Amino acid sequence: MPRFFKKVMKKSGLAPGTLLYTNEKRMEKAKITIIDYDEKDLQEKVVKTMEECLPFKASPTVTWINVDGLHEIDMIEKIGQLFDIHSLVLEDVLNTGQRPKCEDFGNYIFVVLKMLSYEEKKHEIRAEQVSIIIGPNFVISFQEIEGDVFDPIRERLRASKGRIRKMGPDYLAYALLDAIVDNYFTILEKLGEKIEYMEEVLVTNPAQEILHTIHHLKRETIFLRKSVWPLREVVNILERSESDLIKETTGIFLRDLYDHTIQVIDSVETFRDLVSGMLDIYLSSISNRMNNVMKVLTIIATIFIPLTFIAGIYGMNFKFMPELEWPWGYPLVWGVMLAIFISMVFYFRKKDWL
Amino acid sequence: MPRFFKKVMKKSGLAPGTLLYTNEKRMEKAKITIIDYDEKDLQEKVVKTMEECLPFKASPTVTWINVDGLHEIDMIEKIGQLFDIHSLVLEDVLNTGQRPKCEDFGNYIFVVLKMLSYEEKKHEIRAEQVSIIIGPNFVISFQEIEGDVFDPIRERLRASKGRIRKMGPDYLAYALLDAIVDNYFTILEKLGEKIEYMEEVLVTNPAQEILHTIHHLKRETIFLRKSVWPLREVVNILERSESDLIKETTGIFLRDLYDHTIQVIDSVETFRDLVSGMLDIYLSSISNRMNNVMKVLTIIATIFIPLTFIAGIYGMNFKFMPELEWPWGYPLVWGVMLAIFISMVFYFRKKDWL
Amino acid sequence: MPRFFKKVMKKSGLAPGTLLYTNEKRMEKAKITIIDYDEKDLQEKVVKTMEECLPFKASPTVTWINVDGLHEIDMIEKIGQLFDIHSLVLEDVLNTGQRPKCEDFGNYIFVVLKMLSYEEKKHEIRAEQVSIIIGPNFVISFQEIEGDVFDPIRERLRASKGRIRKMGPDYLAYALLDAIVDNYFTILEKLGEKIEYMEEVLVTNPAQEILHTIHHLKRETIFLRKSVWPLREVVNILERSESDLIKETTGIFLRDLYDHTIQVIDSVETFRDLVSGMLDIYLSSISNRMNNVMKVLTIIATIFIPLTFIAGIYGMNFKFMPELEWPWGYPLVWGVMLAIFISMVFYFRKKDWL
Amino acid sequence: MPRFFKKVMKKSGLAPGTLLYTNEKRMEKAKITIIDYDEKDLQEKVVKTMEECLPFKASPTVTWINVDGLHEIDMIEKIGQLFDIHSLVLEDVLNTGQRPKCEDFGNYIFVVLKMLSYEEKKHEIRAEQVSIIIGPNFVISFQEIEGDVFDPIRERLRASKGRIRKMGPDYLAYALLDAIVDNYFTILEKLGEKIEYMEEVLVTNPAQEILHTIHHLKRETIFLRKSVWPLREVVNILERSESDLIKETTGIFLRDLYDHTIQVIDSVETFRDLVSGMLDIYLSSISNRMNNVMKVLTIIATIFIPLTFIAGIYGMNFKFMPELEWPWGYPLVWGVMLAIFISMVFYFRKKDWL
Amino acid sequence: MPRFFKKVMKKSGLAPGTLLYTNEKRMEKAKITIIDYDEKDLQEKVVKTMEECLPFKASPTVTWINVDGLHEIDMIEKIGQLFDIHSLVLEDVLNTGQRPKCEDFGNYIFVVLKMLSYEEKKHEIRAEQVSIIIGPNFVISFQEIEGDVFDPIRERLRASKGRIRKMGPDYLAYALLDAIVDNYFTILEKLGEKIEYMEEVLVTNPAQEILHTIHHLKRETIFLRKSVWPLREVVNILERSESDLIKETTGIFLRDLYDHTIQVIDSVETFRDLVSGMLDIYLSSISNRMNNVMKVLTIIATIFIPLTFIAGIYGMNFKFMPELEWPWGYPLVWGVMLAIFISMVFYFRKKDWL
Repeated sequence: MPRFFKKVMKKSGLAPGTLLYTNEKRMEKAKITIIDYDEKDLQEKVVKTMEECLPFKASPTVTWINVDGLHEIDMIEKIGQLFDIHSLVLEDVLNTGQRPKCEDFGNYIFVVLKMLSYEEKKHEIRAEQVSIIIGPNFVISFQEIEGDVFDPIRERLRASKGRIRKMGPDYLAYALLDAIVDNYFTILEKLGEKIEYMEEVLVTNPAQEILHTIHHLKRETIFLRKSVWPLREVVNILERSESDLIKETTGIFLRDLYDHTIQVIDSVETFRDLVSGMLDIYLSSISNRMNNVMKVLTIIATIFIPLTFIAGIYGMNFKFMPELEWPWGYPLVWGVMLAIFISMVFYFRKKDWL
Repeated sequence: MPRFFKKVMKKSGLAPGTLLYTNEKRMEKAKITIIDYDEKDLQEKVVKTMEECLPFKASPTVTWINVDGLHEIDMIEKIGQLFDIHSLVLEDVLNTGQRPKCEDFGNYIFVVLKMLSYEEKKHEIRAEQVSIIIGPNFVISFQEIEGDVFDPIRERLRASKGRIRKMGPDYLAYALLDAIVDNYFTILEKLGEKIEYMEEVLVTNPAQEILHTIHHLKRETIFLRKSVWPLREVVNILERSESDLIKETTGIFLRDLYDHTIQVIDSVETFRDLVSGMLDIYLSSISNRMNNVMKVLTIIATIFIPLTFIAGIYGMNFKFMPELEWPWGYPLVWGVMLAIFISMVFYFRKKDWL
Repeated sequence: MPRFFKKVMKKSGLAPGTLLYTNEKRMEKAKITIIDYDEKDLQEKVVKTMEECLPFKASPTVTWINVDGLHEIDMIEKIGQLFDIHSLVLEDVLNTGQRPKCEDFGNYIFVVLKMLSYEEKKHEIRAEQVSIIIGPNFVISFQEIEGDVFDPIRERLRASKGRIRKMGPDYLAYALLDAIVDNYFTILEKLGEKIEYMEEVLVTNPAQEILHTIHHLKRETIFLRKSVWPLREVVNILERSESDLIKETTGIFLRDLYDHTIQVIDSVETFRDLVSGMLDIYLSSISNRMNNVMKVLTIIATIFIPLTFIAGIYGMNFKFMPELEWPWGYPLVWGVMLAIFISMVFYFRKKDWL
Repeated sequence: MPRFFKKVMKKSGLAPGTLLYTNEKRMEKAKITIIDYDEKDLQEKVVKTMEECLPFKASPTVTWINVDGLHEIDMIEKIGQLFDIHSLVLEDVLNTGQRPKCEDFGNYIFVVLKMLSYEEKKHEIRAEQVSIIIGPNFVISFQEIEGDVFDPIRERLRASKGRIRKMGPDYLAYALLDAIVDNYFTILEKLGEKIEYMEEVLVTNPAQEILHTIHHLKRETIFLRKSVWPLREVVNILERSESDLIKETTGIFLRDLYDHTIQVIDSVETFRDLVSGMLDIYLSSISNRMNNVMKVLTIIATIFIPLTFIAGIYGMNFKFMPELEWPWGYPLVWGVMLAIFISMVFYFRKKDWL
Repeated sequence: MPRFFKKVMKKSGLAPGTLLYTNEKRMEKAKITIIDYDEKDLQEKVVKTMEECLPFKASPTVTWINVDGLHEIDMIEKIGQLFDIHSLVLEDVLNTGQRPKCEDFGNYIFVVLKMLSYEEKKHEIRAEQVSIIIGPNFVISFQEIEGDVFDPIRERLRASKGRIRKMGPDYLAYALLDAIVDNYFTILEKLGEKIEYMEEVLVTNPAQEILHTIHHLKRETIFLRKSVWPLREVVNILERSESDLIKETTGIFLRDLYDHTIQVIDSVETFRDLVSGMLDIYLSSISNRMNNVMKVLTIIATIFIPLTFIAGIYGMNFKFMPELEWPWGYPLVWGVMLAIFISMVFYFRKKDWL
């Protein structure tokens, strides 16, 4: 459950704009990495204090500041001062229970979204909050823990592959978003495989444990949906933004990104349909099995109860029971019993129970 | 149920604008508190009659009049006269079954919303109506009972913490709304914990009592939803308002508030999905248990009914039953019975019932 | 069912605008009441023929013509001629299966809505059609039968209470609509009490008859919903109307009315949720009870069938059954049976069936 | 099923605009009727070839050409040439699996809708396609088979009843549409009666056959819905059309027609709700009956199985069974059995099973 | 499942615009066919390298380049260079898990949609991606495998049938889209027949295997829906496009195409309703059958268990059992048993179980 409401609550009662990290401390020490580049040069640096970023702010080159770990509130506050970020934005950066959103503050654009990962041990999807601030010549990204999703982008920057070095901070931001959304497909694939596997199991051996797995899948789908749905609007706002910060050349890429988010949402909806279909099938197959159990009981009981009754009759100790004296009494009773047995079997066969 | 329709009905037949408090009297005496402040000074006062408020109305400072307890209709009427409030607004203030809403009356804005609290004894969410009137230099807030949700705001005002003393009545109103919405997260957390606990119970020990707890959770979710959904529009109207009463600098805070209400609604919807999922799981697990009960019965009956039949056969008292005379008759019968028993057990094992 | 489609069908094949009353005759004689008033004077009159209304039409005072009983088609036609009402409007007045609607015809506005009442005997909600025509200085209201919902308004007019005498026909029309919508809350309360009662019964004693009561509640909710939903748009159209017939000062009252209709709709939706939740609970509790029945059967059968088998064994009449000769045979068998019995009881206790 | 996809498929692979009648031939020979009228005169004629229509086209009078039977493709093509109709329109006229729609082609408006009829034998709703082309001084209507729904309009034309002779082709088209929509109410009534009847049966005697009747009703509702839903938009487009072909005076009638279609849709939705409610009730009552069956079995078995066990005990043949020798043994056993019997009966009574 | 997420995932981590074919290689060698035509001439050619297309690009005639097989990335890249196509478009062409979409790039319009086919062996719908690029004087279409859906268009081009040779590349594109959408109706018919067949089976013989067939139908419907829903918007965008590439004369055809897609979507929705109705019926009929099984068991057990008990009584070996000595004891017991039997049968008949 805590996944569903990451301690947004702690904030209750504080003044708006008060900075407070709302999750457990996940890293020893926050890590700030700076990549500063233009078409010709690229400079990479790990800094200790935010003040070291200041020279990059003035230069016309694109500066990407990546912050891993959000528990050092002083540092976040410093960033706010240096880059003139509104305190509500900083609050949202730290409050990791945010809903994905995109806000235009005039001199910068603020984007929050979720980085998903699949925790194999717990079979659970985990969501980390990633916040991105797009300024005129810088991009600041905040992550809760150090991740490797942005590594390919770093590689492309270093190798000057593709158009990334030739374009501005808006394209860089797009590349970061694209990396995150692309990563969703990995999660979808994991979930998709699980569902596919479950559907097969459902047909061949619908055991009882399946119920909890279906429930689990349902919860994961609800969770996924919650993280992914607002994305559609986020990217849409970004694409239709009339801000100067988003250049027209980047628009086409954002449209492509938008298509991908729609595709993700589409798949999540399909998952929902499939999982809820699975529950129906499971319920039906329980009923079917119950039916079969009942049939076995009914057949056996219906055949043998009357026979046992007959045996009971001739087990009575009345003095005057003429049948008992007949020499053919015993075989006769056997005959009657056999007749009943056979006619019962015929009856059940006719009813398609055998 | 009365929670769902707080006596809106009593009004039926009266002229529109007739003042009538529609809930039981909840406080001994209504309590009026005034906080009057600007950036430099702050004055706090508990008044007896509304006339004492009048001097504050004329002054350019921001005046916050908080009224706890709504049963003194004369007083409410007085406020209406002094601050030129429409009688329909006063009616809505008193009629505590209102739906959250926001209306712009030109010289003031009227906001109704629900303050939620969790009553531990009844395991129920309670909703109090809070009405806020935002004027050019005053804010009037009405509460049914004295609450402590606004205390942190009073503290901030007194301590002159944050920007609150520097800003106008619109920011004060925002702060009040923010305090109420922040408070929702506490309720969400309570409900979330309950749901989490229920889900665990559902897996480990799905007893019969669970059904009513699920039903109860469902009702609470419906109730929560009813209180929370209209909020979205309320805050949206406030944010997009073109009234002079809402300054542009407050807009950004209202947007933040809007994000929070969306988050609350999102969580309530997730609760709905989770609770309805729980019912499905519960129903399936009942079916499963029934299946297991049936299997035990079927196994025992199917094994022993035929055996008892055989025993019945040789309990018959026919004179001429050759088997009875055989020296090996008795062990033979045991042998046959054992054979039937073993083959039955194999059959059930093959069918995965054992 | 006829409630759901009040003989709209009879019309089929007639020219549009043909007048035809589509319900059974409900009153002996139609009754026309006229109240003519301005701020100073008020004149009240029961008339026989419509021609008597004519003088009031010319005067600048507000004239309220109330018609109870719709079966005298000539009279309705006459009204049409005198007040220049379109024949399609008259057709709608008579055709009592109309959906609530609001249409602006330039020189008058036509409003149709439903007056609801709760028939205690049949436990059913009844809907009467009320049509209101708002002209420049008159209001004509049509009711199927004489009702008492408008009585408080008459009282207010006579007593000159509130603002009603000072305002125009638009306010009068608003007052009529308000009276009708206020009346809905009485119905809601009735239904709400029933649902509340049913929920309690559901917990304490979910007997079989409940099923039909739930079904009945569901149908009433569907019916209520059908009557109430279109109201939202009706009042909205009226509020946003740019017609000269609706003065700006009435706008604020219509907005209040709009809030009330939203509240009614909200409650109906909540009812739907609650009733459908009740069905789920009922179904689950049937399953639960079945489970309990099965458990009793299974426990008894599973314990005694094997014991009976053992008794059957030693009831066989084989000549050579050494156990029968043992002096301790009988107590031994009792011992074995007791052992089986106790271990069974333990088994069921472990399985939580006892 | 073919009802649901009236052979739209045959078209696959042909060039757009290729004329092909997609239904079985339903009439011996197509029949073309012409009614040409203005306020003074009316001329009626059954023609063999389309060329006979030509003189009417030029005249300023309103010409209504009604074509019954669509299998003579040459004739349809001829109409297209004479009245300058787009080949895609002709294709749609012939392809009777069209969805109701309304298209403005500048010099004419093309309307497709469904004429419904209830086939008593199969208890099925049948849908015939009716296409209407509204030109500046003519209306062409196409029907698959000769129907009688338009007869009242012919009567009104001949008798010059109402305003129909005074108005243009747009009013004629409206009259045709109105006749068709009015006809829907007959179908609704049929279905409504069936549902009402079923609800009663459901309460009194929920036999097994009901299931298929409910399913059948559901299918009919789905079918009705499919035919009726698009109508809303069709009439709306027509009403809001800015084409010169629709005069303003007809607008008010189209609005009335629009209200009727909304009413039809409303009823279909109510049917859906009612039918799905019936299924729920049916399922619950099956469960209830099963419960009752189980109770009878459980009561009988639970009472007699232990008693039979006791009888079995004293049917054993052990040599040393002291009870057997007791003079009061037999009555004592009877006593014990009676005690068990009575306590069982009490137990079941307490559990409310008896 | 792979059908639902055709390996969109592989892309993850690559730079946007990197070309990569995301499906298995399905053809030996890509095949490029060129048809170049104007009203007078038509030239057809199979080319090896894309350079051969170049002369056609310059000519004013319409050029249709059809590419079957997407695994030769070099070739696709070449096309991009020659016709100045954006790398993101080429990426989408190759990434066959795209959602149907339509994008206007100024000098060309890019359309992606799904070609459906029914694989008889697996009873599955297959979807191939078809991409169409509409330029000022050319149309490029990409297919994953060689298909025959476009053959009728080729025929019409060669035979100069219809208007196709007289119109531009936009009409050609329309013709291609129309061919694909027409093809959907074949799939619908297949599915429709299956559903119809299943409904019949459901009534006559609802065996257990049906469950998986229903589930299968449901999945196919979900899949179909996913492929077809976005089409609506695609065609709508195309129709409302203000691009110079879509001439006004083609608009009317696109509107017709739009109607067809709505019809397809309508049918898919109807399928959904029908299939989900089938599941309800199936579940009900399982319950019904269970009920019948239970009845048989209950009747037999309820009749014979008490009789067996009586027999058991007189099988006891008490010394003093006066009944055993009676000469009429045995026939009397038979009489009692018969009486019980008959009264039981009456009881069950009264309960309608026999």
